[in-house]
Amino acid sequence: MSAPARRPRQVPRRNRDTQIIEAAVTVFSAKGYAAASLQDVADSVGLLKGSLYHYISSKESLLFRIFQESHEQAGVLMAAVDGLELPPDEQLREFVRRLTLYYLENRERASLYFSEWRHLTGDDRETVQKQRREFDAYVRAMITRAKDEGLTRDDLDVQLASFYLVAAVNGVLIWYRPGGRSSATRIADEVAEMSCAALLARPRR
Amino acid sequence: MSAPARRPRQVPRRNRDTQIIEAAVTVFSAKGYAAASLQDVADSVGLLKGSLYHYISSKESLLFRIFQESHEQAGVLMAAVDGLELPPDEQLREFVRRLTLYYLENRERASLYFSEWRHLTGDDRETVQKQRREFDAYVRAMITRAKDEGLTRDDLDVQLASFYLVAAVNGVLIWYRPGGRSSATRIADEVAEMSCAALLARPRR
Repeated sequence: MSAPARRPRQVPRRNRDTQIIEAAVTVFSAKGYAAASLQDVADSVGLLKGSLYHYISSKESLLFRIFQESHEQAGVLMAAVDGLELPPDEQLREFVRRLTLYYLENRERASLYFSEWRHLTGDDRETVQKQRREFDAYVRAMITRAKDEGLTRDDLDVQLASFYLVAAVNGVLIWYRPGGRSSATRIADEVAEMSCAALLARPRR
Repeated sequence: MSAPARRPRQVPRRNRDTQIIEAAVTVFSAKGYAAASLQDVADSVGLLKGSLYHYISSKESLLFRIFQESHEQAGVLMAAVDGLELPPDEQLREFVRRLTLYYLENRERASLYFSEWRHLTGDDRETVQKQRREFDAYVRAMITRAKDEGLTRDDLDVQLASFYLVAAVNGVLIWYRPGGRSSATRIADEVAEMSCAALLARPRR
């Protein structure tokens, strides 16, 4: 930084942003979004509540920012899976495996997404619902491609199958307890194996 | 009734009990347990709040009563499935099919169980957690029997498989919308089919 450092101990803005969002994930997860306050978030990062408003405009905007980051992370994951250019059955396995790992490594953040989206209002809510539909469409398209290539039961109901798959994978957020006897990698492999078996006619082993 | 009817329009106690519990299911589902009040429940059945205390001792006792009824209903379902004395693969299919139908026909009640159990305290909470463990043990035992009879992958992790199965089936409570293009029966059949395929080596078709 070339400008004179008038407030030398100030955390650079980008880092402070990240710090605030991470703190909000923790605070919202621990207390629930409805019960948590911006004061709690400010306390957690060692800022005065008034200073927090330099970075965010409201509690809801903070929740929305968390969701936008989560959406971007999911987008990166999907693009990476697409980039592998796998046949649809292997794509399904790889997608489920990586998504499960992502959930296990980001449990608080991912759980917030599913438990607290109802607190968003107006445009924020519409944006998140639209992104949610895009995610569902990605899953449906993947299953449709597998079906079109004869890799599923002939009579598989793609819509029901995609709902079932998403619920089964999201379930790790409910039942996983860190420190259990299975590693995250092992759980992700098993969830991918069962998901492929559920949907595909002849899962590769 | 042979006793003189001093309050002729009074609803018999058993019916009033049922009516109060049904009303509480609806009120707690609509508002969320934390935000709902006994006044809301009293209004819903046309009683004064004071009169409600002839039937229940507190809001928590009402939630507990709802859960006890749900537990009994699940017990009836499991006993009925056991009574069919099916081989384990067919037992798994029938259990998932009936549980899915039960969820679809009792969505508010079943959703309360999963979303609001944390509001119970003390003995009530312990009782519900114990019942929950019994349910999980039933599912694990069914999968273990299938594995012992060589009907699953040899290396199936029974604990992970039971978590996966329960999450996948419970998922209908999240994604099902009444009036969709699939009937409840069709959905239950598909969920059972995918669940058997996920866990069994060679699902019957």
